[in-house]
Amino acid sequence: MVRGAAAPAEVRYPAPVSGLTQFCAAPGVIDLAWGHPDPELLPAGLVAEATAAALRRHGPDALGYGASAGPPPLLAWLREHLARIDARAPDAAELMITAGVSQGLVMTVTGLTRPGDAVLVPVPTYHLALCILREHPVRIVPVATDDDGPLPGAVAAAGEALVREAVRPRLLYTVPTSGNPTGITVPLARRRELVAVAGDLGTILVEDDVYRELAYDAPAPPSLWSLGAPGTVVRLGSFSKTLAPGLRLGWLTADAATVAGFVAGGLIDSGGGVAHFAAMVVAELAASGVYEANLARLRAELGARRDAIVGALRASAPELDFHEPPGGYFLWLRLPGGLDARALLPVAERHGVAFLPGDVFMAGTDLGRDRLRLCFTRYAIGDLIEAARRLGVAVREAQALRG
Amino acid sequence: MVRGAAAPAEVRYPAPVSGLTQFCAAPGVIDLAWGHPDPELLPAGLVAEATAAALRRHGPDALGYGASAGPPPLLAWLREHLARIDARAPDAAELMITAGVSQGLVMTVTGLTRPGDAVLVPVPTYHLALCILREHPVRIVPVATDDDGPLPGAVAAAGEALVREAVRPRLLYTVPTSGNPTGITVPLARRRELVAVAGDLGTILVEDDVYRELAYDAPAPPSLWSLGAPGTVVRLGSFSKTLAPGLRLGWLTADAATVAGFVAGGLIDSGGGVAHFAAMVVAELAASGVYEANLARLRAELGARRDAIVGALRASAPELDFHEPPGGYFLWLRLPGGLDARALLPVAERHGVAFLPGDVFMAGTDLGRDRLRLCFTRYAIGDLIEAARRLGVAVREAQALRG
Repeated sequence: MVRGAAAPAEVRYPAPVSGLTQFCAAPGVIDLAWGHPDPELLPAGLVAEATAAALRRHGPDALGYGASAGPPPLLAWLREHLARIDARAPDAAELMITAGVSQGLVMTVTGLTRPGDAVLVPVPTYHLALCILREHPVRIVPVATDDDGPLPGAVAAAGEALVREAVRPRLLYTVPTSGNPTGITVPLARRRELVAVAGDLGTILVEDDVYRELAYDAPAPPSLWSLGAPGTVVRLGSFSKTLAPGLRLGWLTADAATVAGFVAGGLIDSGGGVAHFAAMVVAELAASGVYEANLARLRAELGARRDAIVGALRASAPELDFHEPPGGYFLWLRLPGGLDARALLPVAERHGVAFLPGDVFMAGTDLGRDRLRLCFTRYAIGDLIEAARRLGVAVREAQALRG
Repeated sequence: MVRGAAAPAEVRYPAPVSGLTQFCAAPGVIDLAWGHPDPELLPAGLVAEATAAALRRHGPDALGYGASAGPPPLLAWLREHLARIDARAPDAAELMITAGVSQGLVMTVTGLTRPGDAVLVPVPTYHLALCILREHPVRIVPVATDDDGPLPGAVAAAGEALVREAVRPRLLYTVPTSGNPTGITVPLARRRELVAVAGDLGTILVEDDVYRELAYDAPAPPSLWSLGAPGTVVRLGSFSKTLAPGLRLGWLTADAATVAGFVAGGLIDSGGGVAHFAAMVVAELAASGVYEANLARLRAELGARRDAIVGALRASAPELDFHEPPGGYFLWLRLPGGLDARALLPVAERHGVAFLPGDVFMAGTDLGRDRLRLCFTRYAIGDLIEAARRLGVAVREAQALRG
């Protein structure tokens, strides 16, 4: 509906930055670098009601050392929910609550690797997952991708080379559904190939599935977890994109032995369930049916924003090449002939728009200089259209400067 | 006031176990093994009010990706609060929010050690901290203690032996204030010695300071952190014992460079502040003055429970030797001549009381068979007095069985 609409002369900037959240942006800049939600889409009222209801219903049980795998009511709802949104629902023993994908990733790397193990990562890979991996004593091994995701042959070749060096290709981290940064959703056939090749290598797939429910056109394909044999996939889910990131609440599915190991680990044994209060709040919210309604509203709004920025970029910045993402938060753009994203950024900022240069996603390779990531969820449609216009101007100016 | 009071014939058992929390106990057993708070002392009403207020005041800013070091209002209050309860208040750059001591410990071990480094631990040490340490590729080295805490000479000897082996004695984990399991508070002179010897070795003290505010007789001594040179101590604090463990909210003080490193790490860069929603709730609760009032009530109640169990054990189980702890959650008991805590436990359970055998705290040594830990915070005074009576009966029965 907004496709190709004219850019407004005046732009609504995000609310003044409070210092309470991570987000900040230079004055006058529409900053599409941050993979954040629009504050106006965060359901503060729903969370307030659910908290009051949870504390009324459960009192101190919402505040004690929480059940190790998470509160049973939330786990029960999640199992039903996953039956609706994925090809297989987890058994009770295959599911646990986390404090978000990032905490789940820390727990997975700590629990499943030994020093010197290798973690395979597609190029590109979510840059902050790379940061987490780099803080552990593992070797990060880049793997080539195409427009359908990680290349099974590249995974096999990298894994076999490691094995010849007596290094375990222990994990492969990937965001196969509306991926970060690419927006790509790996098709079913490629999913089956990846599960097979990882299984042959004894490599555990770590599937960051945070965008599954933000599929705007059609339901996401079956998860790698649903396709893999038990013990071959750890799938990380989250309420950060579907409710609110500040809750720091997520979940994971894996085989029963892996889940049992995490649940019995020191962190949870010592502190109880890792996000008990937030989990009790969301259990209440989910049981009331409010989760589904909120998600439907969010999906419609974010799908419209995706459409708006795609249309605006095609109209205002036709120099930029990209695939329309089927869901998620991001567009992954290729710059025209020889333009460098790092060189473009100050030009773009001068024109009032910002993005994340592609090289941060490249796992230490020297690729991605001609790539950039845009997030289309933080700003309203008018701002996105204006951002596309400014980006087009900046690209043409940078091209002219190169001569 | 309840010291020496007669044991009631009938015992109030804890509320039926909901499955929502970690706690469980065999029917009819007063289970003093768990280091948990009494559900009746968890301030559900205050948390409900504070959550409503925080969401009313800050709306989506309480639910977005939170400020990396934690919400500035909570950090500001904590700095003032620490000025009141410790010998030195942290600078702004020396303080950050954690998701509890356990998460802070994971972050500290991950961030400050390399594979093969040694972590020194007093014997005894909080057993679940040992579990966390064992999940990391470090060498755990036990250090002897006396009634004043870790022996500086033993720390120096262990550290020097490691250095001779080219192993870094990187961390020393300790709970120096109303310690777990011993209840001991390390005196000021010993604190100064520990800080000095660790400084000489280049060993960072990891000070688990979770019981500082639960000092029942006199304020706790200055923290190791307040006594150490910058860079020599990481101090872990928590709201688990002073408000509610299910919030999974804590804090740490360290030198500015260490805090900056943790704050800039992958976990927080990716997910924002690690407990943003809970932190916003507690910021509201603290600003309203309710935190202090709740803590005063808690300290009075738990101090009375400490007095009750101490008096009851002296009256009903004089065979057991222990020091009266100045604060915290625990009593650390020595069994009479040759009795083994593992052998006593089934006898005690038959009599309707349970405890944690001392050997779990001993860092892999074969010590502690004659020791046990009791927690006096989970049950009301009548139950504690009855538990002491049952324990005395069990001890005498076990002694008679040994002949």
